[in-house]
Amino acid sequence: MKLLLMYTLLVGILFGADPLPSWNDGPSKKAITDFVEKVTKDGSADFVKAEDRVAVFDNDGTLWSEQPLYFQAFFAMDRLKAMAPDHPEWKETEPYASLMKGDVKAAAEVGKEKVLKALMDSHGGATQEEFDRIAREWLKTAKHPKTGKLFTEMVFQPMLELLEYLRANGFKTYIVSGGGIEFIRAFAQEVYGIPPEQVVGTVGDLKYEVKDGKPMLVRSGKAVFIDDGPGKPVGIQRFIGKRPIMAFGNSDGDFQMLEWTTSGEGPRFAGIVHHTDEEREWKYDRDSHIGKLDRGLTEGPQRKWTIIDMKTEWSRIYPE
Amino acid sequence: MKLLLMYTLLVGILFGADPLPSWNDGPSKKAITDFVEKVTKDGSADFVKAEDRVAVFDNDGTLWSEQPLYFQAFFAMDRLKAMAPDHPEWKETEPYASLMKGDVKAAAEVGKEKVLKALMDSHGGATQEEFDRIAREWLKTAKHPKTGKLFTEMVFQPMLELLEYLRANGFKTYIVSGGGIEFIRAFAQEVYGIPPEQVVGTVGDLKYEVKDGKPMLVRSGKAVFIDDGPGKPVGIQRFIGKRPIMAFGNSDGDFQMLEWTTSGEGPRFAGIVHHTDEEREWKYDRDSHIGKLDRGLTEGPQRKWTIIDMKTEWSRIYPE
Repeated sequence: MKLLLMYTLLVGILFGADPLPSWNDGPSKKAITDFVEKVTKDGSADFVKAEDRVAVFDNDGTLWSEQPLYFQAFFAMDRLKAMAPDHPEWKETEPYASLMKGDVKAAAEVGKEKVLKALMDSHGGATQEEFDRIAREWLKTAKHPKTGKLFTEMVFQPMLELLEYLRANGFKTYIVSGGGIEFIRAFAQEVYGIPPEQVVGTVGDLKYEVKDGKPMLVRSGKAVFIDDGPGKPVGIQRFIGKRPIMAFGNSDGDFQMLEWTTSGEGPRFAGIVHHTDEEREWKYDRDSHIGKLDRGLTEGPQRKWTIIDMKTEWSRIYPE
Repeated sequence: MKLLLMYTLLVGILFGADPLPSWNDGPSKKAITDFVEKVTKDGSADFVKAEDRVAVFDNDGTLWSEQPLYFQAFFAMDRLKAMAPDHPEWKETEPYASLMKGDVKAAAEVGKEKVLKALMDSHGGATQEEFDRIAREWLKTAKHPKTGKLFTEMVFQPMLELLEYLRANGFKTYIVSGGGIEFIRAFAQEVYGIPPEQVVGTVGDLKYEVKDGKPMLVRSGKAVFIDDGPGKPVGIQRFIGKRPIMAFGNSDGDFQMLEWTTSGEGPRFAGIVHHTDEEREWKYDRDSHIGKLDRGLTEGPQRKWTIIDMKTEWSRIYPE
């Protein structure tokens, strides 16, 4: 399917076909294509050299769905259950107890930070290679409780097209996510066409050890860097070392990333995916435990950020 | 000069000229070119896909000189002097006092970790943008006390050729250095052709702040990650997310990086630059305060790592 998509885009570019077929003609599509055209037009005042065409994307809620809880939490639940015999205290501690029971609503209520901490705990105790194998295995088989799809089938078709469209125009596309960097790397290349070195995320502690002559990287499960909120511009500087000219997010955890991106000099673009479609996906914003979008919805339009109305602007949500 | 080098290499590849003209015909040059030929030969058992051709390079002592002290320490000295009025205690604390006096030998004697700490302190108190400007400015004017050259003129010509040769063969070249990531980024693109996102180094704490509506990244000067010794494989996993197939270093601080690289499956290459040339550069190894090479010199040959004898294998040291 990915090859087909690339082919479609190539034909599109050569013959003038629509590079964003799952985007309805509307303000967001126009804003995106206008921006890309002006920064890639040699000689124009807004031209940006290819090496500075950096576009960053949040993952949860921006590139794939995130309800009723971050997909990584479903992975974490399965991991916690597998690890529970070594951690008897989890039975009486939140959000561990709820996560192991699959009660995602109760887990979400203790707050994003504690959920992130539990995610990290569930991600320790293995070498990096083992973890990668476990995550890939899980992604191949685990299914979403509501849609029955593989989680990797719940990526947004319009955003896949956008990623390809930007790359075809010389952009380097990065993920900048609050999710675990190694969890995202386990599928980003195959699903998004984004290689490991272009994934920025929450970072777990790793320790180099040599056992019986065999070197390994062991995961403690401790988070050493949380790539969320004000952490996102820090993660961008640390990993990429330059300010993006384009950024997409969907929640207030992305606010600082969009602010940082758009406060640089020259042409800048920020887009917010607004979850408005309760039939085909989910509808939530200001009051949601997951993916809360409040400040961005109020200040975004004042800052000339593009609010993408999923319901009216996307003709398709998921790949077929 | 960089364009000329690229042109020379391109002509070299097209017409069979020597891609490594500053390397004498010897065991290291043969080992390098044999390795590159076998991993790039389609259909061979040792073929490696372009996306996995990751080559990592230490910086100090591997890509440029590092005597009588890491070059970043000279920058730090100048910064410490500029910042001294706000830090009266530095006058009586080592290595600060020695560094401000320019007594690099005394500074080196307190050990690598304390010197690194002082480097970080000297690198705080500014926004990331200001720091970048200060570092670039310094690199354009500051000169090495012994050679009188700009520090960026003390890069190794054979290694510049090696970087270009590897990239011409589909490799992605990274720096993985104990030095400060942002200091290296200030010259890596221009001098080595390595973009900011391919620099891994010791990481300073950054904080996102918005002052009078203007977002900025402020440097505290605290190191949050030391990319040295066992930290190097961790840095590689964190930033690159895959194991390199080729690694070059020069000191025991690179040992784990070379060990990690060469313990993966398939063809692997490790090279150690051995500083043996007291006339054209410096001569040091097992007993040096800076760039100590002891374990690597003993175990390297047993592990089939290539020891590059600077004196006999390099026809030139620095660019002309």
